[in-house]
Amino acid sequence: MDFLKDYTKKINKALADIKLPEHPSNLYDPLRYFFQLGGKRIRPILTLLAAEKFDKSALNDPLNAALAVEIFHNFSLVHDDIMDEAPVRRGQQTVHKKWDQNIAILSGDVMLVKAYQYLNGYSPQISQQLIEVFNKTAIEVCEGQQMDMDFEKISKVTQEEYIQMITLKTSVLLGCALQMGAIVGGGDVQEQTDLYAYGLNMGIAFQIQDDLLDLYGDPKLVGKQIGGDIIANKNTLLMVIAKESANEKQLKTLEKLSSETNIGKKIEGIMALFKTLKVQEKCHDLMGDFYKKAEYHLNEIDVNNSESGLWLLTKQLQKRSY
Amino acid sequence: MDFLKDYTKKINKALADIKLPEHPSNLYDPLRYFFQLGGKRIRPILTLLAAEKFDKSALNDPLNAALAVEIFHNFSLVHDDIMDEAPVRRGQQTVHKKWDQNIAILSGDVMLVKAYQYLNGYSPQISQQLIEVFNKTAIEVCEGQQMDMDFEKISKVTQEEYIQMITLKTSVLLGCALQMGAIVGGGDVQEQTDLYAYGLNMGIAFQIQDDLLDLYGDPKLVGKQIGGDIIANKNTLLMVIAKESANEKQLKTLEKLSSETNIGKKIEGIMALFKTLKVQEKCHDLMGDFYKKAEYHLNEIDVNNSESGLWLLTKQLQKRSY
Repeated sequence: MDFLKDYTKKINKALADIKLPEHPSNLYDPLRYFFQLGGKRIRPILTLLAAEKFDKSALNDPLNAALAVEIFHNFSLVHDDIMDEAPVRRGQQTVHKKWDQNIAILSGDVMLVKAYQYLNGYSPQISQQLIEVFNKTAIEVCEGQQMDMDFEKISKVTQEEYIQMITLKTSVLLGCALQMGAIVGGGDVQEQTDLYAYGLNMGIAFQIQDDLLDLYGDPKLVGKQIGGDIIANKNTLLMVIAKESANEKQLKTLEKLSSETNIGKKIEGIMALFKTLKVQEKCHDLMGDFYKKAEYHLNEIDVNNSESGLWLLTKQLQKRSY
Repeated sequence: MDFLKDYTKKINKALADIKLPEHPSNLYDPLRYFFQLGGKRIRPILTLLAAEKFDKSALNDPLNAALAVEIFHNFSLVHDDIMDEAPVRRGQQTVHKKWDQNIAILSGDVMLVKAYQYLNGYSPQISQQLIEVFNKTAIEVCEGQQMDMDFEKISKVTQEEYIQMITLKTSVLLGCALQMGAIVGGGDVQEQTDLYAYGLNMGIAFQIQDDLLDLYGDPKLVGKQIGGDIIANKNTLLMVIAKESANEKQLKTLEKLSSETNIGKKIEGIMALFKTLKVQEKCHDLMGDFYKKAEYHLNEIDVNNSESGLWLLTKQLQKRSY
């Protein structure tokens, strides 16, 4: 997404410019390391784009709020990577692999506090509003992560539960990023609510799209192996819908396929069953509903406009082909 | 400390009254569990005692700030217990033992955010001041914990480094608790500074006293085995001072004794060396200096008064005999 390049650069530069103490190096080196791992920086960019809608005079620089969102996101990645025992993040070693688990816990903790430092640097009224939405969101993200871990241990998850989990784990932070931009930019309560709802629904749609792309995406565009979620027996929306739609015989087939060791046969078998159960269509329709809701709320504060950063972003995200 | 009983009860009741969601239970059950494990609740009591000095009309109830301090303390214990692989806390299983490590990481994270919720509930100006001192303190506590972990891996720690470590790891939170009480109660900057300095110095003195009590305390009053730190080869101020004062021959003796398997012989040998090096006296003098500084700052805002809660507390803590 070329039009975002300058924003990404701005965020990367601001992260690189953060002054961190030299000592204790085992506490701060992981922050320096993680901040330069890169990434699309979508969340802080949403804060900047939202703020731009309101405040032409830029009395409140949205950059610090944007940094808080990105640093919080990094905190959650560092702790999630421990929990998921993930060895790699953005092509590099995760913090708990490169250092150790204790250092990853503690440097994650410091990141979380750092995020609050950036939020607390505005006028008292603005800071209080920012911290209120941020607190609510941070707690929800933890709830979502816990639900995700819980779901790994149970076989039957409903569609509603799954949507709730991805909403909490990832989408609320997009809503929060946008609402914080509106707060800093001087948006009123209705504008804040619409931007939050736009981010929330777009985030859910985006996650559903991820599940679809994993199986039905163009391998050249997706950039990873097709069917990775199936191979890993991951609970995706596709699988949740399949289990909800399947009769007893089909459920048994699914169960059998989940322990199939021939990967080609496993993917082929599950795809055939998904086709019978119209899983792709159902998932696609659901995604469409959330994208529509997102567009509705965006339109409320920003009439569809091909020049607008948020509209450009929305269209680009939707276009990710599968 | 009988005069504190009502305060402890008040804090315990407030913790028990905190409304936490039922779900996800794996996230919130550890909070409910940990909040009722008990403890002296010294930190939140300091906030209440400090606030009482100023605000007779109680326009700002200090209870929420006090809860924030206690919840932050609990957060740091839950995460520290993972790092130290501690199985028991206050006679009960630690969170990572009773549930698992991932749940302990995540429920600790939620505690930290909860602390900010309590701080953000005052007027914008008060909340911003509270969060500023809290952020600074939270970061310092993480730095102290990292220094403590680093020190376990190096043999030579200077007296200054050791004092800096205990200052960051534990004493700054006492200073913060008192300063927050002053902020909520309406104390001016000088009063805030004096209360902070009182807490900081008292905290350092208290930690040094702990090191002394471990070896020279009355076993009946201390309530645990004498010499536990020596048995565990822990870096205490006694050991740091001994190593700084020792000549090469004495250093070799110390090193040899650290791997001595006969516990009685080990303690006896190290105590003899400590006596030659006047370790107890040096440590005692240092503790006295910090208690004196603490009293000086308390006297600045509260002329020595046997009825005052903070003076009573100070005298009681100093009396812990060894």
